[in-house]
Amino acid sequence: MANPSILILAGDGIGPEVMAEVKKIIGWFGTKRGVTFDVTEDLVGGCAYDAHGTPLTDATMAKAQEVDAVLLGAVGGPKYDVLDFSVKPERGLLRLRKEMDLFSNLRPAQCFDALADFSSLKKDVVAGLDIVIVRELTSGVYFGEPRGIFTEGNERVGINTQRYTESEIARVARSAFELARRRNNKVCSMEKANVMESGILWRQVVQEVHDKEYADVELTHMYADAGAMQLCRWPKQFDVIVTDNLFGDLLSDMAAMLTGSLGMLPSASLGLPMENGRPKALYEPVHGSAPDIAGQGKANPIACVLSFAMALRYSFDMGDEAARVEKAVEKVLADGVRTADLMGPEGGVPVSTSQMGDAIIAAL
Amino acid sequence: MANPSILILAGDGIGPEVMAEVKKIIGWFGTKRGVTFDVTEDLVGGCAYDAHGTPLTDATMAKAQEVDAVLLGAVGGPKYDVLDFSVKPERGLLRLRKEMDLFSNLRPAQCFDALADFSSLKKDVVAGLDIVIVRELTSGVYFGEPRGIFTEGNERVGINTQRYTESEIARVARSAFELARRRNNKVCSMEKANVMESGILWRQVVQEVHDKEYADVELTHMYADAGAMQLCRWPKQFDVIVTDNLFGDLLSDMAAMLTGSLGMLPSASLGLPMENGRPKALYEPVHGSAPDIAGQGKANPIACVLSFAMALRYSFDMGDEAARVEKAVEKVLADGVRTADLMGPEGGVPVSTSQMGDAIIAAL
Ligand SMILES: CC(C)[C@H](C(=O)O)[C@@H](O)C(=O)O
Ligand SMILES: CC(C)[C@H](C(=O)O)[C@@H](O)C(=O)O
Repeated sequence: MANPSILILAGDGIGPEVMAEVKKIIGWFGTKRGVTFDVTEDLVGGCAYDAHGTPLTDATMAKAQEVDAVLLGAVGGPKYDVLDFSVKPERGLLRLRKEMDLFSNLRPAQCFDALADFSSLKKDVVAGLDIVIVRELTSGVYFGEPRGIFTEGNERVGINTQRYTESEIARVARSAFELARRRNNKVCSMEKANVMESGILWRQVVQEVHDKEYADVELTHMYADAGAMQLCRWPKQFDVIVTDNLFGDLLSDMAAMLTGSLGMLPSASLGLPMENGRPKALYEPVHGSAPDIAGQGKANPIACVLSFAMALRYSFDMGDEAARVEKAVEKVLADGVRTADLMGPEGGVPVSTSQMGDAIIAAL
Repeated sequence: MANPSILILAGDGIGPEVMAEVKKIIGWFGTKRGVTFDVTEDLVGGCAYDAHGTPLTDATMAKAQEVDAVLLGAVGGPKYDVLDFSVKPERGLLRLRKEMDLFSNLRPAQCFDALADFSSLKKDVVAGLDIVIVRELTSGVYFGEPRGIFTEGNERVGINTQRYTESEIARVARSAFELARRRNNKVCSMEKANVMESGILWRQVVQEVHDKEYADVELTHMYADAGAMQLCRWPKQFDVIVTDNLFGDLLSDMAAMLTGSLGMLPSASLGLPMENGRPKALYEPVHGSAPDIAGQGKANPIACVLSFAMALRYSFDMGDEAARVEKAVEKVLADGVRTADLMGPEGGVPVSTSQMGDAIIAAL
């Protein structure tokens, strides 16, 4: 059988730095565990624009469609703020999501024991937190038409369209229910059915899928504003949250912040099964390209490393190896190894990006 | 000169209970301060539907257009969940906002010293917090057309339209800049200009209004997901936040929760000046109708009382009297008077809604 294949798109800012540590771990798997991945690398985002005038070339897009998993670092930076909307770094990422049809974006918000003090929330509110936000990633207001800035009379008007079909809602709902079954069997669905018809349809379809196929899973519904509140107040009441693309964007960032460790959180974006049975998949840290610290060897590579662990679990059916990576990260944190973003008020000497990577490998 | 006029729409759930305490305070102003308001009362929300088959009659709408200020309690309840979208309690509130053209919704998130321990956030993160979210309230995805649930092929599709004109953005931006000038002179505008064209227009217009008319105010821009994060991480970095209807809904609820005292937070929704120079205005607590505790005399009336204080300030130019009410609330809290929602882990005996109202009047 052919080796599993990976396309690395390290992107901009700290992307290449954190990805370098993942490459070390991929190397470790080859030499120490006899698991060899066929790795190719390419450009996405601002660096792709610099090289080719587009944030994602058709050739890179085609490669992404063929590999077993894409690992992405981060895209964007102030240098590209002046670019036209259509060639901004973000468009590269959004094109990957859309054309690979990665409708189910899993964003775990997990609070590491060693870091529970880091949150702006009280320790008892976040210690032991372990929830997953399942965000719809290929539709909604991110992609709906009509969209654009038009002229009406003598003024401009900005338009975007929130649009969800029944089948788009049903498939992401299923992925949330499936995930809940492997966890604590609870799903909370969030929308604004009190003001948006698309929210009404969302609520109805999630309920229908539940009643027909997942009646064993506990399902509740919450308005997204109340959901934002409850995530702040007592996040442990949740297990799996399923929501649309835009609400998912805000709520997952907020949930990530609860854990106090944005540099720690991975994500998986999954689509339909390919011929080999593996889902189309892209893995990326929740954090951005952090231009302010790029190139300084300060970035925390853990989110990117844990994204690779998610790839082991969801793309390569190597749950044990995924757990091995996750355990290594936990051990390193428990040992007090800290990048600059994880320095508490008590101070200490932070390690560099690459020292953190080395510590994880030593712990593997 | 005629007395200032107020229309009270107490609404559903705990609305009438908390409004009863405001009526006491209005009475107190008449007897003790010689300030008499012409008060009329009417129905909105579920109770209006029960009486008239609509959450807001045309007659009530007409009255709201004529008075100097509307005081609203809360709308909605599980009993009305089965109603058709077009007659849900929320439609009454949304009609008031839209037809009175209340484009600027001020939602202060203020942390009362006596309650700083109540937040799920660490005390140093929220103590002394005093920010205002200015939410656009008459446009965006709440009102944009086309909207609805349609059939396409053999499936349903839910559609809403996010739509902002230049002038809609400009006027709410102005109100945020005006407010900032009376505060700490800082505005942060939030949108998703990296994925939505309506967000690009939002950012451009806010910047233009700033550069032309308010260059003395410090203006920053943030993506709404990063904004949600930063509100969780270090909310004191903000002074005034200006954002659209939907982002404002989520972000203001979240900000309210930061203070740990949802039952405490008022809001003002302001429109254009009327003939008498007063702005069209509606005042309401940020909390909802809380059907679970309705009718039990447990509700905290402070948010509704502070909404009336905002009316004194913004509609009746009685800033000193507004401050008097706010000071009375602070004193009562400092004295340890607590409704059930404000009971800490140390316990104690909660006062009723009406006892809280009486304590505020005693402190006036
Ligand atoms: C970079 C941006 C386009 C993206 C989004 O809005 O989806 C990011 O915020 C995310 O959450 O992955
Ligand atoms: C009740 C509902 C229609 C309303 C809204 O979504 O605006 C509420 O959540 C609010 O924030 O005032």
